[in-house]
Formats: sequence, structure tokens, C-alpha cells
Amino acid sequence: MQSARTRQDQLTKPRGSLGRLETLSIQLAGITAQPRPRFQQPAIITMAGDHGIARQGVSVYPAEVTPQMVFNFLRGGAAINVLARHVGARVVVVDMGVAADLESHPDLVNAKIARGTRDFSIEPAMTRDEAQRAVEAGIEIVTRAITGGADIIGTGDMGIGNTTASSAIVAAITCQPVEQVTGRGTGVDDAGLKRKIQVIERALQARQPNRADALDVLSKVGGFEIGGIAGVIIGAAACRVPVVMDGFISGAAALIAYGLAPAVQPYLIAAHRSVEIGHRAVMEHLRVEPLLDLDLRLGEGTGAALGISLCLAAAKILDEMATFAQAGVSDKE
Amino acid sequence: MQSARTRQDQLTKPRGSLGRLETLSIQLAGITAQPRPRFQQPAIITMAGDHGIARQGVSVYPAEVTPQMVFNFLRGGAAINVLARHVGARVVVVDMGVAADLESHPDLVNAKIARGTRDFSIEPAMTRDEAQRAVEAGIEIVTRAITGGADIIGTGDMGIGNTTASSAIVAAITCQPVEQVTGRGTGVDDAGLKRKIQVIERALQARQPNRADALDVLSKVGGFEIGGIAGVIIGAAACRVPVVMDGFISGAAALIAYGLAPAVQPYLIAAHRSVEIGHRAVMEHLRVEPLLDLDLRLGEGTGAALGISLCLAAAKILDEMATFAQAGVSDKE
Repeated sequence: MQSARTRQDQLTKPRGSLGRLETLSIQLAGITAQPRPRFQQPAIITMAGDHGIARQGVSVYPAEVTPQMVFNFLRGGAAINVLARHVGARVVVVDMGVAADLESHPDLVNAKIARGTRDFSIEPAMTRDEAQRAVEAGIEIVTRAITGGADIIGTGDMGIGNTTASSAIVAAITCQPVEQVTGRGTGVDDAGLKRKIQVIERALQARQPNRADALDVLSKVGGFEIGGIAGVIIGAAACRVPVVMDGFISGAAALIAYGLAPAVQPYLIAAHRSVEIGHRAVMEHLRVEPLLDLDLRLGEGTGAALGISLCLAAAKILDEMATFAQAGVSDKE
Repeated sequence: MQSARTRQDQLTKPRGSLGRLETLSIQLAGITAQPRPRFQQPAIITMAGDHGIARQGVSVYPAEVTPQMVFNFLRGGAAINVLARHVGARVVVVDMGVAADLESHPDLVNAKIARGTRDFSIEPAMTRDEAQRAVEAGIEIVTRAITGGADIIGTGDMGIGNTTASSAIVAAITCQPVEQVTGRGTGVDDAGLKRKIQVIERALQARQPNRADALDVLSKVGGFEIGGIAGVIIGAAACRVPVVMDGFISGAAALIAYGLAPAVQPYLIAAHRSVEIGHRAVMEHLRVEPLLDLDLRLGEGTGAALGISLCLAAAKILDEMATFAQAGVSDKE
């Protein structure tokens, strides 16, 4: 990082004038332990899972949309496909726990823990063993992607009901009131939002997740794709590969990852500030500042794709710009 | 725009969930009069000029940096070259009024009005005829770029002393106090900032620019590259080509363009919010919201390059995503 900082100050621009692109390049140097990191193969890992809690009417979309969207990802028609192509990233689609038997497909990674979580308003979403296996699957999948050449990772999610699980995780871990970390997800109306808040409040009361034990929180109110994303974050950091978090669901997953392994913190890059109100509490807890603020609330890794493009830009500035000496430009008087 | 809006609502995502990418795509459809605009050839027009006011010690860099940086642009070593390559844009470098005889170069457009402006603390920066010729040169240069295939334009600037000229323009046109629209430019210290504010206050008192007459403002306290960028904005809008404004200097130029031709307003896209304090007054006056906020204050078109990438992303979302019907995905219940 010191080497990257010194170089930034020698490049042909007023010191600090590229703002967050400069600090980001220095963070990337630290993460990768390379004074001038170069990224050739960005990959976005989009993990899908279903949620028993969706039966409580917390979403405006039916649960069947989760497998339908997985097929949309595989055919290249979803927003994440468009934005990944735009930034030169590959999309790895993972079935972490979709409540349908998906036909095998060469681009689909099958890591299904179960056919959806259980309804956490009634019982724990999953067993502790399932929670651990979800995180371990994420670690394994990202490690395989990195072994295959991926050198910068974005996270993404798909799962009808997963903003409800994420709000429950965020409330449990950050100790914020449920209503302050619960938003409209894909677009519930006022009555739906009220119901969603009540469902989460009652579930947290009944399940009593232990905030000091991230695996307990994940198992009681989480989701399989959320556990998988937590594993992706831990695995990428362990490989010294930058991991660009998407929005609110990835943020909830990052809380789990951070709870399990606080050492991930300096490896975290927050792509954007989500419209979902609870995302602020996530970012405060993780002490990260988002790069973008574009009123996004889609998930899938769409914000992460745009964030990756900024990471590539930052790294190229550090690597490709001429120094004052090289360019024969006079420095500050 | 109506057609684009209707299509956005049929794409496989919750309505509105891509936030500013959706509204941006609709604006791009309106600008181009195409329901699904496609952009193949982004171009960033970076205009350079010198400023007599630099002799008043308002910058930490010597004026010789302007021609040195022009050579850096032509050799591809500057920040704008790196970011333009990153987003697939070509850079058009224009000498609008550098205070040195530049050797001719195949990639340098010579539109020199004079060897730098006059010191506007002593006399008007340029004649009214020079101001008009600067704007007309910008119109001609952008029109030529568009005829040559450019279909989305970014603006950029280089000129030691040009934040001083820009602050003077912004104060004159928006009626804000000078100290509220004057920042540190390339990095003056507290004493330098105080001197810069005094220089501008006295110059505005002495020159009395008429805020209702943008050409008068440009001629009395402006710069040749600022006039050129104003012309680029007007010319691009006239050709129905989106024009992505860089930061503070491009913003001051946009105030001139808007003063000359208020019809440009719906064509304006603000790439980012500059660190320069006066940029806020510019954006309020123009009624635009910046896409990015990355603490940039470099100029050259660096923010515009990143903004162009977001425009391309927005247009691709509109054009390439599958609809609910195409993908067989269930819509809202």
C-alpha cells in the first residue's frame, strides 16, 4: 500500500485529485499485495436460494420467480448478464437452495443445501450444520473460481423473500430496531411493509439469534444464498482477491462473514448504497463507504458489476498513468 | 421516452429497481429520439487553454504545465487517456488557446483563439468576438466528431488557472458570493484560497459581467477552453447526441451554454459531483443531479469518462434485457 501511495503521488495529476479512485487503488494494492495490481478476469458469483418466510406474504413476487430468474441468468437475459458483459465480467450462477429441481446446465453450479429454507417465523430457517455447509460451499466455489483465473470477485443474490431474511440478520447483528432496517424489497406497499416488519419482529423474539455467533444468526433467520455469499467473501479474502459486495443481501452476508472472520474487513469493497434502508446500518457496522449511489435495489450483483468497473479503472490509473518525470511535466511549484 | 419507459417496466426486474440507470436510459432515449439507443463510438473532447489570471498566483502549478499536459494527452499517459481506454472512448485533444506554439500532431485539433487569455483582474479576458469564435469552434469540432461517427460525447478541460475563471463565471451567473463558489483548484493552501477569492471579487467588481448575457460573462472573466466546451455542449445537443459533462470547469461552460441556448437543459448529463465547492451552485442552476460522487477534482474529462460508462450501461439495460414475457418469468402478483 505504501508503494502504491508513493506512486499515486508521482503520477501526472494534482495529488489526491482522483479522490476515491486513488484510495481504492491503494486498497487494491494492499488486498493483492501487489504495488500495481492488474485484473484480467472479473467474476460475479450470483447465488440463488428460496425462503420459507416467503409464505408469510412478505414479497410482491411469487416464489416461483427464483427458479425462473435462474434460467434467465443462464440464458443471459437478466440485468446482471447485461451489466457483467458491459464490464467484462463472467457470471457464475449457483443454486444454493432453490425450491425446485433445476435441470443441470453447464453454467450452473449445483450447491443446493435444501429446497429452500424453512419458514423462520415458525422454526429456524436451517440447521446449524446446513448453515455451516452453506458458508463452506461459498468458500469452495470462490476458491475454485480463483484457481480458474478469476482475480476480482463480485457478489450477487437471487431469492424471493431474501430482503426479509437479510433485515432479520441486520437487526439481530447491529441491534437496530427492525423497522429501521426493513425496506420494501421488490416493492411491497405500506400494508405489506408493516406485515414484513411484524413478521421479522416476532421471528426474532421467537428464534432469539445470538448476535455474537454469526452461524447461529444465519441458521435461525438467514438463507442458503446468504450463507453462500458469506463464504464467497471469506474465501476471496483468504486468497487475497478483492471482493466487491453488491447491495443489501450481500451486505447481510458480509455481516455473517465479518462475524465469523473479522479479518475480512480490509478486503471489503462496497459497490453501492442500496435503496433498502437497512443497508446503512450494514455499512456502518462494516465501516465501509459505498462507491456508487444510483438508487439501485435489484440485487443479482448488478451494483457489484458497476463497482468492479470502478476497481478496474482505479487499478489502471495506478498502473498505466505516466509520472511527472516520465512525461516531462513540471510538478507543484 | 414514453416507449423507453414502457419497455423498462416490462424487463425482468422489479419496476424501478435499477433506479438512476432506468431514468438515465429514458433520458438517453429522449435525447436521441430512439426508443432503444445504442452507442458505438464515445468521444471525449478535452479542450486546453491558458489564463492570464494565472499570473496572479492563483494556482500551485506553473502555466507551462498546460502545454506539457497537452503532450501528455497526445502520448496517452494522462488520467483521461487511461480512463477513456477503460470505457472504450476516443480522446479528441483541442488547443483552444494554449500560451505556447504547439507542434502539429495528427491527434491535436488546432483551434487556438490566442496564446492564452488576458489577465481578467486587469482587463477583460478576451474580446466579445474571441468569445464568440471560441463557442463556434466548439460547435464545429463536436459537429465534425459526430459526422465522423461519435454518438456520445464527454467534455473535458486542461488549463492552469481555469478554476479561477470558472468560479468567476459561476459567481457572476448564479449570483452566489465568490467565497461560496471558489475552491482550492489543484490544491492552493489557505492563504492561496484567500488570495484567489479576493482576485475574483475585485475582478467581478471591475469587469461587471452582465449575467443576462453569457457571451459578455465569457469574454470578461472566462477562458478559451471554457467557451469551446460551451460550444461542444450546444453542438452536441443540436445534433441530438448526449453530452456528458465533466466537473467544475465543464459546469461553468454549461452555464455559458445554457445562457446562450436554454434548450440545451434536457440534453445535459452531469457525470459527477466535483470536490470544487462551486460545482453545487452549477448543478442547482442547471437542475441536474450528478451520477457519481467520487471526490474527483482533476478535470480533463476523467469524470465524464466514468459517466459515459454508466450511460452505456443504462442504454444496454434498456436494449438487451429480456422482458417478463420473453423469459417466461412471472410478473408481480
